[in-house]
Amino acid sequence: MTSAERVGVVGTGLIGTSIAMAAIRAGDAVRGFDVSAEVLERAAARSGLAPARSLEECVRGATLVFVCTPIPSLAELAVRALAAAPEAVVSDVGSVKGTVTAEVVRRADPADLGRFVGGHPMGGSERSGPDRASASVLDGVVWVLSPTPGTDPSALERLEAWTRRIGASPVRMEAERHDRLVAVVSHLPQVASTALMGLAAAEEAGEPQMLLLAAGGFRDLTRLAASSPRLWADILLANREEVAGALERYAARLLELRELILQGRGVEVEEAFAHAKAARLALAAKPQVKAGVAVLQVPIPDRPGVLGELTAALGAAEVNIEDLQIVHSPEGGRGTVHLTVAASAAEDAERVLRERWFEPLRLA
Amino acid sequence: MTSAERVGVVGTGLIGTSIAMAAIRAGDAVRGFDVSAEVLERAAARSGLAPARSLEECVRGATLVFVCTPIPSLAELAVRALAAAPEAVVSDVGSVKGTVTAEVVRRADPADLGRFVGGHPMGGSERSGPDRASASVLDGVVWVLSPTPGTDPSALERLEAWTRRIGASPVRMEAERHDRLVAVVSHLPQVASTALMGLAAAEEAGEPQMLLLAAGGFRDLTRLAASSPRLWADILLANREEVAGALERYAARLLELRELILQGRGVEVEEAFAHAKAARLALAAKPQVKAGVAVLQVPIPDRPGVLGELTAALGAAEVNIEDLQIVHSPEGGRGTVHLTVAASAAEDAERVLRERWFEPLRLA
Repeated sequence: MTSAERVGVVGTGLIGTSIAMAAIRAGDAVRGFDVSAEVLERAAARSGLAPARSLEECVRGATLVFVCTPIPSLAELAVRALAAAPEAVVSDVGSVKGTVTAEVVRRADPADLGRFVGGHPMGGSERSGPDRASASVLDGVVWVLSPTPGTDPSALERLEAWTRRIGASPVRMEAERHDRLVAVVSHLPQVASTALMGLAAAEEAGEPQMLLLAAGGFRDLTRLAASSPRLWADILLANREEVAGALERYAARLLELRELILQGRGVEVEEAFAHAKAARLALAAKPQVKAGVAVLQVPIPDRPGVLGELTAALGAAEVNIEDLQIVHSPEGGRGTVHLTVAASAAEDAERVLRERWFEPLRLA
Repeated sequence: MTSAERVGVVGTGLIGTSIAMAAIRAGDAVRGFDVSAEVLERAAARSGLAPARSLEECVRGATLVFVCTPIPSLAELAVRALAAAPEAVVSDVGSVKGTVTAEVVRRADPADLGRFVGGHPMGGSERSGPDRASASVLDGVVWVLSPTPGTDPSALERLEAWTRRIGASPVRMEAERHDRLVAVVSHLPQVASTALMGLAAAEEAGEPQMLLLAAGGFRDLTRLAASSPRLWADILLANREEVAGALERYAARLLELRELILQGRGVEVEEAFAHAKAARLALAAKPQVKAGVAVLQVPIPDRPGVLGELTAALGAAEVNIEDLQIVHSPEGGRGTVHLTVAASAAEDAERVLRERWFEPLRLA
């Protein structure tokens, strides 16, 4: 086990405060700083971090520093932290790594650069602010670590060990590669979701019942559209080339499908759909759950307590619920629950539910 | 209350069998037919419908007939049902209405057309087959009814009363309008989801860790991609003009956003995102729940039984859960639950959860 660290957290919003909470839970000492005294106070109250009056006071004597501010200020503050904390490994948590690490490399004292490692814990959400922070936000998340060419291997290893110690899954990846991949699996979905919601909202002006017909699928696809506009504008602009490329390839694929549909080429449409379906089913087996998962579909009537009966029955049988989603409820009065459990627990789950008169059906 | 009907169900897959179950629950007599004897047998075993050996035997003497087969055969079978059941109001459940109703109008005996009403219960899912049917699939769903110019108003009213009696929400809408609206809120999301999954899967071939970085947002957006390829090829081709139009407008919107991002026009990107966010938050207040809804965010640790404690506590307090979604779990070991309850029950829910040491936070 790695020994306890002295952790400085610069920027105590959702992720910064969550890092503080995870560090404190793991036995580390944590100091925090935020330009907003009020945000810092709420972060201290929520997490138990020691508030500092400046970045320099926050990181002085630290062994690990995380810069958790909006993207535009990350590099500058990382450079200041490197200078003010001569023993610390300094990292950031920005959703884009190329521009940030390049700026740190350009601006920092070269003697400090061995101690800098870019980072990105992939546990964000549509939430923000210290009040919504939790150590559990970081449990099991993939935490990308992007060393620069000048990063000291021991600094990388130390940060890696720490992320593992607090329960995350570190993955080494160079900054450019990270940005190329997240452009497709994170930034593109965000823009796709926002564009779909924006289109439907704009068109509803002339078609008043449009959103009345919006069922569960539409809601799934537009959930991300409720994310922070400011945060996303920063992210997308910081990764503009890769995002633009992903959007271009995505639009091209949509227009290819459009052409097949318009020409009535049903076999090819079906093939494209079958290919995507196979890929999605493969994705459902999460890499984090090594034994694989099973998905059970369970119809539930719409009365208070029934979901409680279901989940309590599973809990009493020591079956852990990996994911649970009510599928029909957004549109209907009743629901069907999709329940994800470890594959090894699926038989137990089915048996227990049947004993309670539920009718689970194994989907995958 | 409408008196009991004699219901014929032609095609006993997921929706047909669900209609049979909802009708039987409401006190109707139901006969069913399917070209697959094996599917019909399973449907009879699941629902209690009386199996018939032909379409004609199924609908003879019926007062209401639902044709629930794949889109390509809907019109032909509706025409046969109109001829074989001279007292029945005949409807279908196809996801596309324009082409189907036009074909019925063209092919049916004009004397029968007063009894035909197109229909679309908007309660589909990625599932299929009678074994997954349930009366609750139709509870509260929006059921679009599309009369033709020749439809007898009394036939429309009778079907409308029946859909209401079994717990659905009928909405009258002409076929062309239905198809234009679902092209945007149902067919476009399906293609957008499939295209995103297809793109990421194709690109992962050259970038092996791409899907390792796919977090909750990507999963939300690609869930629909697991739907039936055959069913969707039929739907998209049957509504090809409207779908092609929606895809074109969507691609154009994506490319507009791409241009703003590439040019670094952050203010305009942020504005577009803010507009979509406001629309999505408005959508979260479901029209079906008249008193409005509230969404509570509740962090939950990853141990068996904790979700049971949460839902049981709410059940004991008679708080009905409208929707429940585990937000972080797909990527992390722990989860945050988004809990939707009626706005009038939100305070009770918060109080009850706090008593059990949960930390609910009201989002909306």
